[in-house]
Amino acid sequence: MIRHVAFDADDTLWHNERIFLEARQRFIQLLAPYHDARWIEERLDDTELRNLDHYGYGIKSFTLSMIETSVELTEGRITGAEISRIVELAKEMLQTPVELLEHVAATVAALAGSYRLMIVTKGDLFDQEAKVAKSGLGDYFERVEVVPQKDRATYATIVARNGIDPGEFVMIGNSLRSDILPVVDVGAHAIYVPYATTWSHEDVPERVVSQYRFLRAQSMLDVPRLIRLADGTTSA
Amino acid sequence: MIRHVAFDADDTLWHNERIFLEARQRFIQLLAPYHDARWIEERLDDTELRNLDHYGYGIKSFTLSMIETSVELTEGRITGAEISRIVELAKEMLQTPVELLEHVAATVAALAGSYRLMIVTKGDLFDQEAKVAKSGLGDYFERVEVVPQKDRATYATIVARNGIDPGEFVMIGNSLRSDILPVVDVGAHAIYVPYATTWSHEDVPERVVSQYRFLRAQSMLDVPRLIRLADGTTSA
Repeated sequence: MIRHVAFDADDTLWHNERIFLEARQRFIQLLAPYHDARWIEERLDDTELRNLDHYGYGIKSFTLSMIETSVELTEGRITGAEISRIVELAKEMLQTPVELLEHVAATVAALAGSYRLMIVTKGDLFDQEAKVAKSGLGDYFERVEVVPQKDRATYATIVARNGIDPGEFVMIGNSLRSDILPVVDVGAHAIYVPYATTWSHEDVPERVVSQYRFLRAQSMLDVPRLIRLADGTTSA
Repeated sequence: MIRHVAFDADDTLWHNERIFLEARQRFIQLLAPYHDARWIEERLDDTELRNLDHYGYGIKSFTLSMIETSVELTEGRITGAEISRIVELAKEMLQTPVELLEHVAATVAALAGSYRLMIVTKGDLFDQEAKVAKSGLGDYFERVEVVPQKDRATYATIVARNGIDPGEFVMIGNSLRSDILPVVDVGAHAIYVPYATTWSHEDVPERVVSQYRFLRAQSMLDVPRLIRLADGTTSA
């Protein structure tokens, strides 16, 4: 019987990726006098990937990668004013209001009446706590777990530490790799709610996905029904 | 009866502040052609304080503040090569080996036989998890709590969520403001182990400190005895 409902945060509860996509476009415009867009984007991708082990995820990490890329790409000709624009871009990203996805507010409020809710999210602790506070949903969640990885071991630890039987736990998220497959791997339930775009690093081959049992929602509106379905208390 | 021993991490288990102090010195040298040391340091302090609400703590936050300060202080004349040096400085900071403080390894190992150990630390989640892993002490700690603030509410949440009676909990740390006073405020025990230097933002007036009951250790070597003392199972 499902008693615990956990949500991913970025691009499950609120928009996030588009903030990065917009910042990338503005970074490309900033460096347009030096290089063409495609080359700038490829180099930024390379820098981000190379830095992931040093910096982890989040806006501050992304900003340091933009700055590093800007110096490399201009062979040091980047100006102080241009660097300053990148730092401003970071601050604007951090100050972007939290915009909930459609149906999130009503669904979370409704579920809070029947289940114990938590957030399980990657990213920068400071940023994520700030977003939970700004979302207006903070009071519905008993716990916010900000974790450096979202793999099988992470979910095993989360259920164990909270004394939760995996069969009582369902994870809702937009990433197959982070929110769905490792959750199914520990014997818990998972509901996949795809976001409009999906970060390319998170693609999973269909032959892998097809071996996993989980539910797919069209939007957050479907989630309460799918939780009951996963629970076996209603038929499709 | 004390059953849970929690440690602060930076400058309690391992050296940290000196990594920042050294980076600040190198930053000052880098900008020496533009300004005198004192002015550079004051401006960096101002930028850090101003950015604390946006960025939180940690090396990435500090680096973004160094970059911002370098542009401001040089009125944009900072070169790409100099920006690159600041980014390298950040990576060197992140790659600095974790160096345990004296007596930490033996004390932690000894306490693990009698108590349940955890780490409660501020800072950047990604960096802190990496440091725990590099410290070689990871296996002794049942939990690592990386928190955005260390105030009374934080400690109240930590004991409540783990089903700990405050009287069973002792916190060990080098910061009166973060590790000692708020812990005493929730009715738990605290042992203050001062570090050689103390970050200036954390000074607390003596008249406030004198109202709190906690123990002071000369070094980590004293901690096991002081835990027994706090527990009332031995006399001074």
